[in-house]
Amino acid sequence: MAAQPTPADRFTFGLWTVGWTARDPFGDATRAPLDAVEAVHKLAELGAYGMTFHDDDLIPFGAETVARDEQISRFKKALDETGLKVPMVTTNLFTHPVFKDGGFTSNDRSVRRYALRKVLRNIDLAAELGANTYVLWGGREGAEYDLAKDVRAALERYKEGLNLLTQYVTEKGYDIRFAIEPKPNEPRGDILLPTVGHAIAFIGELDKPELVGLNPEVGHEQMAGLNFAHGIAQALWHGKLFHIDLNGQRGIKYDQDLVFGHGDLLNAFALVDLLENGAPGGGEAYSGPRHFDYKPSRTEDYDGVWASAAANMRTYLLLKERAAAFRADPEVQEALAASGVAELNQSTLGQGETLADLLADRGSFEEYDVDAAAQRGFGFVRLNQLAVEHVLGAR
Amino acid sequence: MAAQPTPADRFTFGLWTVGWTARDPFGDATRAPLDAVEAVHKLAELGAYGMTFHDDDLIPFGAETVARDEQISRFKKALDETGLKVPMVTTNLFTHPVFKDGGFTSNDRSVRRYALRKVLRNIDLAAELGANTYVLWGGREGAEYDLAKDVRAALERYKEGLNLLTQYVTEKGYDIRFAIEPKPNEPRGDILLPTVGHAIAFIGELDKPELVGLNPEVGHEQMAGLNFAHGIAQALWHGKLFHIDLNGQRGIKYDQDLVFGHGDLLNAFALVDLLENGAPGGGEAYSGPRHFDYKPSRTEDYDGVWASAAANMRTYLLLKERAAAFRADPEVQEALAASGVAELNQSTLGQGETLADLLADRGSFEEYDVDAAAQRGFGFVRLNQLAVEHVLGAR
Amino acid sequence: MAAQPTPADRFTFGLWTVGWTARDPFGDATRAPLDAVEAVHKLAELGAYGMTFHDDDLIPFGAETVARDEQISRFKKALDETGLKVPMVTTNLFTHPVFKDGGFTSNDRSVRRYALRKVLRNIDLAAELGANTYVLWGGREGAEYDLAKDVRAALERYKEGLNLLTQYVTEKGYDIRFAIEPKPNEPRGDILLPTVGHAIAFIGELDKPELVGLNPEVGHEQMAGLNFAHGIAQALWHGKLFHIDLNGQRGIKYDQDLVFGHGDLLNAFALVDLLENGAPGGGEAYSGPRHFDYKPSRTEDYDGVWASAAANMRTYLLLKERAAAFRADPEVQEALAASGVAELNQSTLGQGETLADLLADRGSFEEYDVDAAAQRGFGFVRLNQLAVEHVLGAR
Amino acid sequence: MAAQPTPADRFTFGLWTVGWTARDPFGDATRAPLDAVEAVHKLAELGAYGMTFHDDDLIPFGAETVARDEQISRFKKALDETGLKVPMVTTNLFTHPVFKDGGFTSNDRSVRRYALRKVLRNIDLAAELGANTYVLWGGREGAEYDLAKDVRAALERYKEGLNLLTQYVTEKGYDIRFAIEPKPNEPRGDILLPTVGHAIAFIGELDKPELVGLNPEVGHEQMAGLNFAHGIAQALWHGKLFHIDLNGQRGIKYDQDLVFGHGDLLNAFALVDLLENGAPGGGEAYSGPRHFDYKPSRTEDYDGVWASAAANMRTYLLLKERAAAFRADPEVQEALAASGVAELNQSTLGQGETLADLLADRGSFEEYDVDAAAQRGFGFVRLNQLAVEHVLGAR
Repeated sequence: MAAQPTPADRFTFGLWTVGWTARDPFGDATRAPLDAVEAVHKLAELGAYGMTFHDDDLIPFGAETVARDEQISRFKKALDETGLKVPMVTTNLFTHPVFKDGGFTSNDRSVRRYALRKVLRNIDLAAELGANTYVLWGGREGAEYDLAKDVRAALERYKEGLNLLTQYVTEKGYDIRFAIEPKPNEPRGDILLPTVGHAIAFIGELDKPELVGLNPEVGHEQMAGLNFAHGIAQALWHGKLFHIDLNGQRGIKYDQDLVFGHGDLLNAFALVDLLENGAPGGGEAYSGPRHFDYKPSRTEDYDGVWASAAANMRTYLLLKERAAAFRADPEVQEALAASGVAELNQSTLGQGETLADLLADRGSFEEYDVDAAAQRGFGFVRLNQLAVEHVLGAR
Repeated sequence: MAAQPTPADRFTFGLWTVGWTARDPFGDATRAPLDAVEAVHKLAELGAYGMTFHDDDLIPFGAETVARDEQISRFKKALDETGLKVPMVTTNLFTHPVFKDGGFTSNDRSVRRYALRKVLRNIDLAAELGANTYVLWGGREGAEYDLAKDVRAALERYKEGLNLLTQYVTEKGYDIRFAIEPKPNEPRGDILLPTVGHAIAFIGELDKPELVGLNPEVGHEQMAGLNFAHGIAQALWHGKLFHIDLNGQRGIKYDQDLVFGHGDLLNAFALVDLLENGAPGGGEAYSGPRHFDYKPSRTEDYDGVWASAAANMRTYLLLKERAAAFRADPEVQEALAASGVAELNQSTLGQGETLADLLADRGSFEEYDVDAAAQRGFGFVRLNQLAVEHVLGAR
Repeated sequence: MAAQPTPADRFTFGLWTVGWTARDPFGDATRAPLDAVEAVHKLAELGAYGMTFHDDDLIPFGAETVARDEQISRFKKALDETGLKVPMVTTNLFTHPVFKDGGFTSNDRSVRRYALRKVLRNIDLAAELGANTYVLWGGREGAEYDLAKDVRAALERYKEGLNLLTQYVTEKGYDIRFAIEPKPNEPRGDILLPTVGHAIAFIGELDKPELVGLNPEVGHEQMAGLNFAHGIAQALWHGKLFHIDLNGQRGIKYDQDLVFGHGDLLNAFALVDLLENGAPGGGEAYSGPRHFDYKPSRTEDYDGVWASAAANMRTYLLLKERAAAFRADPEVQEALAASGVAELNQSTLGQGETLADLLADRGSFEEYDVDAAAQRGFGFVRLNQLAVEHVLGAR
Repeated sequence: MAAQPTPADRFTFGLWTVGWTARDPFGDATRAPLDAVEAVHKLAELGAYGMTFHDDDLIPFGAETVARDEQISRFKKALDETGLKVPMVTTNLFTHPVFKDGGFTSNDRSVRRYALRKVLRNIDLAAELGANTYVLWGGREGAEYDLAKDVRAALERYKEGLNLLTQYVTEKGYDIRFAIEPKPNEPRGDILLPTVGHAIAFIGELDKPELVGLNPEVGHEQMAGLNFAHGIAQALWHGKLFHIDLNGQRGIKYDQDLVFGHGDLLNAFALVDLLENGAPGGGEAYSGPRHFDYKPSRTEDYDGVWASAAANMRTYLLLKERAAAFRADPEVQEALAASGVAELNQSTLGQGETLADLLADRGSFEEYDVDAAAQRGFGFVRLNQLAVEHVLGAR
C-alpha cells in the first residue's frame, strides 16, 4: 500500500485544475466556481505541498486595485494557515479576446505591449509570494494559416519579450527563473515552440539563457506522438527541466488533461523512474515540484474533483514504489547489463584515445567482424517485460 | 505552363530514391536494381542539378577495395559526362543488422566505433566528390522500450560522435558541414532528436555548432503532426537550414515518401513561398539544393519512376510560379497589411524605448482599452482563401 | 473564374457556424451573438440555398412557449422573404450539463428519457419547416474511461433511441430520414460510432434501417487519419450518404472546423469529383445539400465571418470546375485507362462463369505467369500528378 | 504470481510472428529463418494451444507439389507429436510483387482471379488441418492516390470475392468461417475496410453474412487512434468477433506489432476484462483463441524471440488475474453502481411503456428538473483510479 502524500513529496496543483468549472468547446460549465481559499485548504488536507495560479485564476481579469489586494490578502492568509507554498506562478495570455492572435507574438503591436505589461505586473506578485519559477504557456502564440504568420518575425518578438522579462527579474533582483511550456496545437492550429526540442533551441538564442528553461507537460508532447520520458531526458541533459506538468493523455487527439497515469501508464512509469532514480540509476534527477496540470473530468462533481486530485498523487507514489522495486530487482539488474544499458555510458573512444588512434585501430573497422557482432541479441523485450511486471505489481 | 527544370533550379535526388526497388515491410522488391550510372544520365536528362547517395547505395556494403574504386570511377565518369553534381553525401547506418540498436548510440560500444569509422571513411569520398554537405540520418538511434535506452547517455554519445566528425573535417580542411535529419519514429519506436527543434537544441551543445545544421524532411515533421513550413522557418531563424528533403506525406502514419506536393499541398505552397520569397517578402531564404527524398510508389515500373522524378520538379516549379503571383497580387498585399503580417516585424518596444519606458507607458496597460482592441478582426481566413485561390490557379 | 454561388448549387450552412461566437476551451467569445434572422438574410445574399440549426441555436434552451413561438415565427418570415430553405434540422444534446455523460446513452436513465423527448419535440419543428433530414450528432455519447461505460449496453440504448425516432416519424407520416454524424473523439475521450464504418454497421441492426443513414463530416474522419473520400465512397456504396458536412481539418488533432478546402486540398478535390462526377465517371453521385459545418476562426470579426462563408462556396465551385476539366482531359482519360481504374468495374468472374469454371481455368492459376504479371506498372503516380496539376489549374 | 500458460488458455501464435526474420523497411533480416517444425515444438513447450499460418509461411511461394506435400506432412507430424492445434489459417496476398495493387481488388483483373485461386487452394489445406477460422487481411487492398482507385468498384469486387469464398466452403461442407482483419494503412496509404466498423458494415452486404466476421487487431485500430476495447465491444454486439489478434502499439505511427501489453496497458486491461468477464460482468464474452499477432523486436536473437512469446501469454494471464480481482472488489462494485454503469442496461422505456406513454410522461420532460439532474456527479475518475490501482496490483 502506497504511503499517503505529504508535503515532502512536493506535489503541487494549479488553482485552475481543481478549479476548472468544466466548460468545454461543446458544453457549458458543470461545476460552480471554486474559491481559491477553499482550494488551498482542501489541497493542504490532501497532503499537497503547494498551489500555483494564473493571475486571472486568483483575481478576476480587470479587477480594481482594491478588490485585487483584498483577494491577495485572503489568499495569503490561507497559505499561512495551511503552510501551502506557491512555488510557481504564471500569466493568462489566452482567455481574453484581445489575445486571440497571441500575446508576445500577436500581429497587433499594441497587444504585444499589453501582454508584456500584464506579465510584468504578475511577476511582482510571484516574487511577493516567494515563487521561484514563472511559467509561460504561449497557447495563443501561433496560427491556423501558414501565410498569416511570419514565423521568423514571431520568434524574434518572442525573444524580445523573453529578454525583457529576464532583464526585469535581474534588475529587480528576483530569484525567479522562467519556464516555457511547449504545446503543438490547440487552441491554435499550430503553436510556436511546439515541443520540448523547439523550446530548448529557442532558449539558446536568448540574452540570458540560464534564466530560462522548460515546463514540459505530459499530454502536450504526447499530442505530437512524442515519447514524454525521452523529452524529459533530453531536457535534463540540457539542464533545462525547471518545472514539470504531470497529467494523462490517451494518444494524439485534443488536449485531455487526465489524471496522471490515466493515459500511457508504462511511459508514466518510465518518467517517474527517470525523475526519482535518474535512470538508469544514480539518484533523483529532478528535485522541483511534481506539479499536476490536469482537469477533473466534466462528468464529476466536487467529490469527484477531490478524488481526482488525490488520485494524481497516489498514482505517482505507487509508480515511485514500483520503480524502486524495479531498480532493486537482481533479475532486472542482470537484464539491464545484458542489454548493455549502462554500456552506453562508456565513451566511444577509450580513455586518452584520439581520433587518429581510432582511425588506426583496425579492430574497429578493417578487422571488425560485423556479421558476428550483428548476432548479439539485446534482450530488450525481456527487459521491458520485467518493467511491465513491476508495473503490474507482479514481482 | 511551368518552365522545364534546369540545373539552375538546383534540383537534386538521392540515388536511393529513383533506385528504390520497392521492398517494403510486407512485400518483396517490385523493380530490378538501378545502376547508378544510368540514374545519373537519366536525372541529367530530366533537368536535375545533382545526385546524392549513401555509401552503400553506390558501393555494396563490404565490397573489396578494387570493386569499390572501380565503381567510384564509373560514377565519376558519368558525373563528368553529364555535369551532374554531388552536393551532398550520407552514410547508411541502418540497413545492416549490426546497426539494429543504432550506430553512434548503440548500446554496444564496438558498434559505435564501427559506425564512426564507416562515416569517416565515407566523408573522404564526399570530399573527393566535392560535396559540401554531409547528412546524418540516425534512423536506428532510438528505442522501442523506455527502460532499454538511457537517453541522456545516448545524447552524450551522439555528441561525442558529432564532435569527432567536426574535428575530422576541420583537421582535414574539408569544406563540409553536417546536417542532421530528424525523424520521430520508424524504424525505431522512438528516434532520438525526433524533430527539427530537438536537433537544433542538441547542436547547441556541440564543440563546433557552426559546422552542424539540419536537413529537415517534409514527411518526418508531418509524421509528428507538426507544420513543416513552421519548422523550416524556425530552422532558418537559427541559421540552421543547411539542406532540405522535399517529399509528400498524408498525415500521421508510416513514412510515405510520396512525390513533393502529393501530400499537404497548401503547406507545400507555404514552404515554397518561404524558401523562394522569404515570406513575407524579401528575397530567397534558402539557396541550397532542393533535394527530393521520396520513393516512387511500389506499384510503378521504371517508366513510372522517371515520371515520378519529373513530377517532383514540376510541382515545385508550379508552386514557385503560384507563390510569385501570390506575392505580386495587390489584393494579397492589401490583405497581408490588414492582417498585420508585416506589423510583426516591428519591435514591441519602440526605437530607443527601455523597459522602464514601457512600464511607465500608461497607454500600454493602465489606459489600454482592452475590449476595444479585442474588436480587431485579423482577416486571416480571407488571406488564406486568397492563398488557396492562387494555389488553384484561380487568380 | 468560378461562377458565383446560386441556390441551384444547394449550399447550406448551420446557423451555429456563422453564428459561432468563438468561445473555445481556452478563451472567451470574441464575437457578439448573431441573430438568426440576420443570418438568413446574409446567407441568402451570398447565394446559399438553405440554413440548418440545432433547436437551441434558434431558441434558447428552456425558453417559454410564447418566446419559442415568436422566435419561430420571426425565423419563418425571414425564410419566406429570402426563399432560403431548411433542408435539415438537428438537436443539441451536448451543451447543457445534464448531457455530460451523453443523451441517448447516458448512464443516467432519466437523462436518456429527457434526451429522447427533446429530440421528439424538435422533430415536429423540423417537419413543420419542411426539413427532410434530421441529423444526430452524439458528441457526448462516449467515455473517457474504459471501465466507466458498458459499450454494448450503450449501443443497445442507442438502438432503442433510434428505433423510437423512426417509429415516431413513421407514425406521424413525416417525410424525414435520420442521418448519424460520426466522430472519433472530442468532447469525449472516445465517442461511440467513431467513424463512417461503425455508424453504417450500427444502422444494420435497427428496426427501420432504410430511414437511417449518415451525415459524415470531413474533419471528423480525418481526425482518425481516415481518407474522407474513401469513407464517402463506402457510404455511397451502402446507399447511406443522406447528408454531408463539408469543412477543413489539418491532420489528427482537435476538431478545427476550418473552411472547406483549407485543410487537405487534394482530398477535397477527390471528394468534389466523387460527389459531382461519381468517380470515375457516370453522373452526380450525391444530390443532397452541400452543407458547410465549419467555424469562422476566432480571430475574425463579422466581416471575416461572411468572407469565410463565401470562401467555402467559392472553393467548392473552383474544385468542381477543376474536376470537370480533369475528367475531360484526354491525357487523364488515357492515364486512367493505363492504370486500370475502370477495369476494376469488370467482375472478376466472366459473364456466366461459375466458381467451378474458375477452379478449372488453369490460366488463372496453374499456368498464370505470376512474375510476368508482376511487371505491370500501374502508372498511379503519373495519374496523381495529372490530378495535382489540374488542382493547380496548370492544365 | 500468475499461473503458467496451458493449452486450456487457448493461446495461439502465427508462424510468421516467432518466425519473423526482422527485415524492415530500412533494414535487412537480423535472424535466420525458423523452421515451422521447430516453432511448433517450441510453442508447445511454452504452453501454447495452437499455431496459425499464411500459406507462404509454411510452404515457400511457388513450391512444387511434391515439396509442398512433404512440408505439410512434416508439419502435421509435429502437430501430432505436440498436440498443437491449427485453429486458424490465412493467405498471403501481399508479399509477391503481383499483389502490388491488391488481391481481390487489384485494378488488374487477372491478379484478382489469381488471388481468388490462391485463397481457394489454401482453404482446402485449412480444412484438412481442422481450422475453423479463415482470416483475410487485405493489406494491399487500397491506394495511395485518391483518383487511382474507384472505391465503390473495389468494394464490389471485394464482395464478389467474399461471396465466392462463402459459396465454396458451403459447397464443400467445410466448417469454416471467414474473419476480415481491418487495418487503416500500411503498406498502402489507405486500406479498404480500415476499421472494425467499416468491415462490419461491409459484411452486411454479403450473400452469407453469417459466415463472415472479424479478426480485429489491437494495433490496427490504435493506428487510427480508436479505442480497441470499444471496437471489440461493438464487434461483440454485432456477433462478429470471430477471432482476435493481440499485440501492442504505442500510438498513431507505423505498425509496431509489440508484445501484448507493451503498448497501452490500461486499454489492454479493459480488453482482457471484456473478453474474460464480459464487462461489466456476466461471463466470458469471447471463447475463441487468444491469438498473438506480434513481431519479436528486430534487436532480439532467438532467445529473445522465445522470451517475447512467453511474455505475451504471461501479461495476458496477469491482466486476467487483475480483472478478476477488480470485479471481486466490493469498493469497485460500489463505485460501478455509483457511476450507473449497470443502469445503462435498463431500457430507456419502461417495461411495456410505449412511445405514446413516453410522450405523455410530463416527468420525463415538462416537469423534469434538468438543472437538478445535471448536479449528479458520475464518479468516473474514482472508478478509473480503482482500475489503475488494480492494474498496478496495489489493491
